[in-house]
Amino acid sequence: MTEDTPNEIVVVKSEQSKINSVDFSNLIFGRVFTDHMFICDFKDGKWQTPQIIPYQAMTIEPSARVFHYGQAVFEGMKAYKDENDDIFLFRPDQNFKRINTSAARLAIPEFPESYFFDGLQTLLKLDKDWIKPGVGNSLYVRPFVIATEPAISASPANQYRFMIICSPAKAYYNEPVRVLFAEKFSRSADGGVGFAKAAGNYAAQFYPTSLAQKKGFQQIIWTDASTHQYLEEAGTMNIFFRINDKLVTAPNNDRILDGVTRKSVIQLAEDLNIDCEVRRVSVEEIKSAAKDGSLKEIFGAGTAAVISPVSAFEHGGDVFEIEQMEKDSYASLFKEKLLQIQHNLSEDPHHWRYKVK
Amino acid sequence: MTEDTPNEIVVVKSEQSKINSVDFSNLIFGRVFTDHMFICDFKDGKWQTPQIIPYQAMTIEPSARVFHYGQAVFEGMKAYKDENDDIFLFRPDQNFKRINTSAARLAIPEFPESYFFDGLQTLLKLDKDWIKPGVGNSLYVRPFVIATEPAISASPANQYRFMIICSPAKAYYNEPVRVLFAEKFSRSADGGVGFAKAAGNYAAQFYPTSLAQKKGFQQIIWTDASTHQYLEEAGTMNIFFRINDKLVTAPNNDRILDGVTRKSVIQLAEDLNIDCEVRRVSVEEIKSAAKDGSLKEIFGAGTAAVISPVSAFEHGGDVFEIEQMEKDSYASLFKEKLLQIQHNLSEDPHHWRYKVK
Repeated sequence: MTEDTPNEIVVVKSEQSKINSVDFSNLIFGRVFTDHMFICDFKDGKWQTPQIIPYQAMTIEPSARVFHYGQAVFEGMKAYKDENDDIFLFRPDQNFKRINTSAARLAIPEFPESYFFDGLQTLLKLDKDWIKPGVGNSLYVRPFVIATEPAISASPANQYRFMIICSPAKAYYNEPVRVLFAEKFSRSADGGVGFAKAAGNYAAQFYPTSLAQKKGFQQIIWTDASTHQYLEEAGTMNIFFRINDKLVTAPNNDRILDGVTRKSVIQLAEDLNIDCEVRRVSVEEIKSAAKDGSLKEIFGAGTAAVISPVSAFEHGGDVFEIEQMEKDSYASLFKEKLLQIQHNLSEDPHHWRYKVK
Repeated sequence: MTEDTPNEIVVVKSEQSKINSVDFSNLIFGRVFTDHMFICDFKDGKWQTPQIIPYQAMTIEPSARVFHYGQAVFEGMKAYKDENDDIFLFRPDQNFKRINTSAARLAIPEFPESYFFDGLQTLLKLDKDWIKPGVGNSLYVRPFVIATEPAISASPANQYRFMIICSPAKAYYNEPVRVLFAEKFSRSADGGVGFAKAAGNYAAQFYPTSLAQKKGFQQIIWTDASTHQYLEEAGTMNIFFRINDKLVTAPNNDRILDGVTRKSVIQLAEDLNIDCEVRRVSVEEIKSAAKDGSLKEIFGAGTAAVISPVSAFEHGGDVFEIEQMEKDSYASLFKEKLLQIQHNLSEDPHHWRYKVK
């Protein structure tokens, strides 16, 4: 990468912190933002000098391409604080790689690695008081890129804005979720953008999810668009199935997001000598396993949700309840292991923790 | 519809028109906008009083959901002026219906019909000098809706902005285009949002299209994501094939936009006693027809492009040139018929013209 030495980040500090107005015991995900944000504009063929400025509304043209053609990608990360007030990110290298993978698929120019990490570090240090210690607390970090060029021709923009905004968070789903296996609607196509964290992938799920919610299911587990016979991911989480003591999860393909939590769970399973098969998982297999009692658990894995147990699934009009295990649940085990690593409470054999310096 | 009587539109006129700074003989599509824009916000469960204000940049939160989850839909329409300075739209009822169909699929609240048409009429009358008479001239009208709620939870927003902006236009594609039939990438999935004018559908096409352009093809004709054997649409245009004297075009489904120009061509074909089959069109059929000489024309149909002839297609490494007909081309015939109706130069048996009063 030729942009290894960024221009120094221009920092304008907020005059007064908003932190005292925030009730950290009653956080709703993604509504409150910290005092600062990171901005870097792309124009004239290159990323300009990055800035950190007070968090605020911005000015944008109504013709900005993001509004018309959805040229936008994002990432989700979390920052954690240990009891020594040290700040950690979890595998941010993976998020950095993925935002550029997503960007490339949407014809957005790649963002330089040094800008990304220098921006993250500077921003997190400025807003460090927003990261509360204690397992379950975190600062959700949202890097995103939007096409800002003020012209509505249907082609890649030549102006973009890369931003990082941060929102204090508790765990995303507190209760086990009831899910519906998709039979009609689809999340993404072969040859499409499902593997990218593309903004449009999410809006496309809202209506089918709202229908599911009316039937009492909080989430949809998406199936392959061609046959609806194979289980893929849950839109904000990848999905694992525990059949007896074996884990199964769908392989990555161009329809499924390459989740950081997913790949961490697969590695942890290997560390723990838990058999984890990465292969296609059919709806029929899971229904049969539910019927014969071998389906012990289903859980989602994602940055926002961490590990989210599933308590029931619906398919073809049949609802299958999954009895929640009181002990030896893989969902609890992986969640515990991940949180311990994330909060600097355990060894980190794979060097997943990234200390903010 | 219960919102039949809108609050009066609040109009703030621009102090000085920008029109004299615009070179109407050298317009690039979608870069220049008229003096005014229409805005209507949705909050507290309803659409608020519509406004028309001077065209300008707007203020929006970085957490606005459109930036993160692509909750955005749009329409494309054109306004035309005849020699008497009367202003016409072409089938705006279809655009109105479709923006709400798109909105529903993206969990965006429907926009009231009276607001849409009152907004359009008021805006077009204010900016009437931007609509130049003469066939080929038009004012491109872009209604769109974006999710503005400042919160990044992955669920439908509770705040939106509906806008109409307008840009003076010449014909979109002036030259016949060379196209590539998609073999690997896809535009949309069964059960997805391909039928909607969803912002994310467009960004997803930019990268594959840029690859096509590097190979000398301006556009891609998308095929079904499951098999890539059936030709669907071109992303900004629906596609017609002329085999001998018969037209063929793909049927609507949940992957293909229900194009207004497409359905107008189908009706015009019926009026002209041209046989038009609406059925699946396979890549193999078109390649065979190209080889045996029965493929006479391929053309795209869309609001921006009107009718855009295709001069060559590529598939499987083979390039098929399509000799452009000097006379009796269906593409020219339909384009002429459409432009005559649009510009109030011919009868309008189907009542497609809508006079702005």
